[in-house]
Amino acid sequence: MCRWLAYSGSPVLLEELLYKPTNSLVIQSKHSRLGVETTNGDGFGVGWYGGGQTPGLFLSTEPAWNDRNLRELSAQVAAGRVFAHIRASTGSAVQQTNCHPFRHGRWLWMHNGVIADFAAVRRDLTLAIDPVLFPGIEGSTDSEILFYLALSFGLSEDPPSAVARAVGFVEETGRRHGVAHPIQMTVATTDGEVTWAFRYSSIGRSRSLFHSTDVSTLRRQYPDNAVLHDLSADTRLVVSEPLGDLEGAWREVPESSCVVVLKGVEELRPFAPVVS
Amino acid sequence: MCRWLAYSGSPVLLEELLYKPTNSLVIQSKHSRLGVETTNGDGFGVGWYGGGQTPGLFLSTEPAWNDRNLRELSAQVAAGRVFAHIRASTGSAVQQTNCHPFRHGRWLWMHNGVIADFAAVRRDLTLAIDPVLFPGIEGSTDSEILFYLALSFGLSEDPPSAVARAVGFVEETGRRHGVAHPIQMTVATTDGEVTWAFRYSSIGRSRSLFHSTDVSTLRRQYPDNAVLHDLSADTRLVVSEPLGDLEGAWREVPESSCVVVLKGVEELRPFAPVVS
Amino acid sequence: MCRWLAYSGSPVLLEELLYKPTNSLVIQSKHSRLGVETTNGDGFGVGWYGGGQTPGLFLSTEPAWNDRNLRELSAQVAAGRVFAHIRASTGSAVQQTNCHPFRHGRWLWMHNGVIADFAAVRRDLTLAIDPVLFPGIEGSTDSEILFYLALSFGLSEDPPSAVARAVGFVEETGRRHGVAHPIQMTVATTDGEVTWAFRYSSIGRSRSLFHSTDVSTLRRQYPDNAVLHDLSADTRLVVSEPLGDLEGAWREVPESSCVVVLKGVEELRPFAPVVS
Amino acid sequence: MCRWLAYSGSPVLLEELLYKPTNSLVIQSKHSRLGVETTNGDGFGVGWYGGGQTPGLFLSTEPAWNDRNLRELSAQVAAGRVFAHIRASTGSAVQQTNCHPFRHGRWLWMHNGVIADFAAVRRDLTLAIDPVLFPGIEGSTDSEILFYLALSFGLSEDPPSAVARAVGFVEETGRRHGVAHPIQMTVATTDGEVTWAFRYSSIGRSRSLFHSTDVSTLRRQYPDNAVLHDLSADTRLVVSEPLGDLEGAWREVPESSCVVVLKGVEELRPFAPVVS
Repeated sequence: MCRWLAYSGSPVLLEELLYKPTNSLVIQSKHSRLGVETTNGDGFGVGWYGGGQTPGLFLSTEPAWNDRNLRELSAQVAAGRVFAHIRASTGSAVQQTNCHPFRHGRWLWMHNGVIADFAAVRRDLTLAIDPVLFPGIEGSTDSEILFYLALSFGLSEDPPSAVARAVGFVEETGRRHGVAHPIQMTVATTDGEVTWAFRYSSIGRSRSLFHSTDVSTLRRQYPDNAVLHDLSADTRLVVSEPLGDLEGAWREVPESSCVVVLKGVEELRPFAPVVS
Repeated sequence: MCRWLAYSGSPVLLEELLYKPTNSLVIQSKHSRLGVETTNGDGFGVGWYGGGQTPGLFLSTEPAWNDRNLRELSAQVAAGRVFAHIRASTGSAVQQTNCHPFRHGRWLWMHNGVIADFAAVRRDLTLAIDPVLFPGIEGSTDSEILFYLALSFGLSEDPPSAVARAVGFVEETGRRHGVAHPIQMTVATTDGEVTWAFRYSSIGRSRSLFHSTDVSTLRRQYPDNAVLHDLSADTRLVVSEPLGDLEGAWREVPESSCVVVLKGVEELRPFAPVVS
Repeated sequence: MCRWLAYSGSPVLLEELLYKPTNSLVIQSKHSRLGVETTNGDGFGVGWYGGGQTPGLFLSTEPAWNDRNLRELSAQVAAGRVFAHIRASTGSAVQQTNCHPFRHGRWLWMHNGVIADFAAVRRDLTLAIDPVLFPGIEGSTDSEILFYLALSFGLSEDPPSAVARAVGFVEETGRRHGVAHPIQMTVATTDGEVTWAFRYSSIGRSRSLFHSTDVSTLRRQYPDNAVLHDLSADTRLVVSEPLGDLEGAWREVPESSCVVVLKGVEELRPFAPVVS
Repeated sequence: MCRWLAYSGSPVLLEELLYKPTNSLVIQSKHSRLGVETTNGDGFGVGWYGGGQTPGLFLSTEPAWNDRNLRELSAQVAAGRVFAHIRASTGSAVQQTNCHPFRHGRWLWMHNGVIADFAAVRRDLTLAIDPVLFPGIEGSTDSEILFYLALSFGLSEDPPSAVARAVGFVEETGRRHGVAHPIQMTVATTDGEVTWAFRYSSIGRSRSLFHSTDVSTLRRQYPDNAVLHDLSADTRLVVSEPLGDLEGAWREVPESSCVVVLKGVEELRPFAPVVS
């Protein structure tokens, strides 16, 4: 469906994340190894935190692999917190307002997966969105609705709880419409300080998700690897699939769990939907 | 805001409608004479009835004046019923799903104008849409919501009544939110057989709207005008602004009225919103 | 690199060629079976002969698989002679002027392959183009330059000879610049009456090319196959790869040969570059 | 035809240049005051010098006024040297490779105007380009050819002389083809340290060109103007038309002259084509 990465650490040029790794996100846009679709060519997006009040967004309907503006931007913009996403549409239109990451104030959100039978449940889900937030909806994806549900359920106060309630509501609504397995997701969200990443699916077989391991351990393990020495100790990546083949560098996020990344420390917590 | 034309008559190449007139729609995309905006460069759309079950649509986010595919298509495709629209966005995203005409089954719909303070009323309007129709909403414009309201209020059974109820509902909703003049519109809709065009605004000063006059009368008036002799007697155009300067060729549609065009006969009726 | 099809026969809706076959060109845009690249997502083009003086062209930089306008057009436009092409760029920009088929007057041209080390030979090749034709060059591909060379060498008088001289000139120029294998190509060209298709490469291992076999034979072989009965007897397809798995329906075009399709009869000729 | 601005001074967010002025370049894209065309909606480009070896480029075929990525980028990227251009095509395709500024190594180039009867002279001009530079040509505009001629005539060693020779060669070539007034131009070019801007036309009635005046003088003149106090003393703008109405802030560049801007000092020199 899609692939994404969430970076936090010392400021790096976007190209270090998007182009240079062996299995970079741009390479995954044409040849994903672990995705449901090998091709993720239905647009892409990058969000980064610079000096502004809100993070910057560059969204495009072009495939990432042939977009020259993405290459230019990636060679010029450095950031210490980056969300990037490549899209394989499950049917909704290929347009910038359907590209991830979605933004609300300082928050970014991106999703790989699907709300099953979305046409059937879309209205009920939409009605549950806080009327104050409603005018911000711009696209037509299940992912954006999930974001707005999480926002409505208190994302900015308690992200894990808000996502649990949003997912619980999606499952409850789906089942009321006779959907056996209402949601499939890996989700990342951030306020610019902390990253929360979730791996969950109603069927219990979720899309792949990994996080990078401690850089200092890796350095001891690979004393001659120059790349590792350029990274700050607090660097962490959460990714749909590993960006390279370095043994020990990636750890799979277990089913039904949430990874919280704060100042270079990741914490793994169980995740379960909550029904109100 | 926008400009549009609705054609019915003998099959003509699209270029006869879109490029060749002195004040063609493509020319209006850069230099509209009567529009609120002189530039209508935020995408365009053409809908035409060919051999298929549903009308064809060509929608683009490019300005009409520089779109080469529109020029190509216009030189190849002929049709006896054509809707065409050039867009000047009032804020919503420039994307194909926001381009007019909108389609539902055999129905086409296009709009020039605005639902005032749309962000404030959007949710209430959206909730009034028939849940069966709801999944068809793809874009984020006021115009599409107005279409879906009209469909929900029975467009396919009694178009003038459905539009009257949709507009009445928009006005009632707007006023409940403190909007003084909730709607401004010229709208055209067709099922492929009849065209209905509406000119109305809450403030009573609606965007311009014209229809072409009887071709046979024009022929007598201008016996040497070759263009007129190529047109079938039942040819009728309803347009945001005249496509040329031929005296007697265009008649303004009065405020608060509806023009019904069927088999080359136009009928003018008063139009007033209906509150349920 | 790319994939294409050249159709001639009774008029069919474009969707019959582009969407409905098991291994349709749109499916190949994401998952080509025999291509050098499985993904051909760097734009596409369709050329068709309608009523106009010149064939119509619809060119787009979007991947064919997600382009809604292509789907619409394909459901509305029927033609008896169609060229269609999906692109996998070998480096030149993704823009409409680099999409195939290229057009000159009534002629269409499309190419799968590459002129090796094009940057090195581009200038010399460009200088050999007839100065009268030169202003028509709009893009930056090797494929367009090859077309203009063929036009300069007399494509409209004797296509096989003109292509042989163009290819001979490319090989001679390449070798002068130290290029071992200067050209790799399957090419199709038509004037709207006859289709010529070429399979050739300097290295003698050319990209795949097939033509469909006699429809009446197939009908006898598969008396229950409804699709075959809808096709006129003179229907012929030349394709980069078979559109389906029907045994006996496709015949590989041999290395270094040219297929000429005229009124449902295909003629196979040897092809060899000619050096002036 | 087009409008542009060339900024040098203390680093500013792009939005300060492109969006905030009363008559900003984005406003000019829809409503230019002094341009030959009021609408400059055929794409745009921004080039800026950041930390990289070469300046960054963001080029788009969308109208500047509705491009959301431009707005995002402008809110995030700051630079001390910026070239920006909005395009009104005189016929060549609307594609990124035809958007200004053009780049070669550290050099940027942008142009407002036209090489008259370009189709007639294009081949001769192209042949005069240094064969080493030739492979870099990507688009189909007269402006890019003019850039490559200037590069071929020594732009990186002596810009005024190289431009004079390039323009001389264009005039000579045009006249040989019977063109009365071969060139119309305002051009800006920079290596990232110095900006050179030229105003010239064969007919002696060139497109408008202005440069900003000394900031410290303006500050004394308008002691209460906050904007002026944020600008560093070496800030200079060269623009197709003034970005605002502040009296004394802009000085017209005379016909047939060149402005050289280096470290906040502008020098005005006469400019005349040189025929080899």
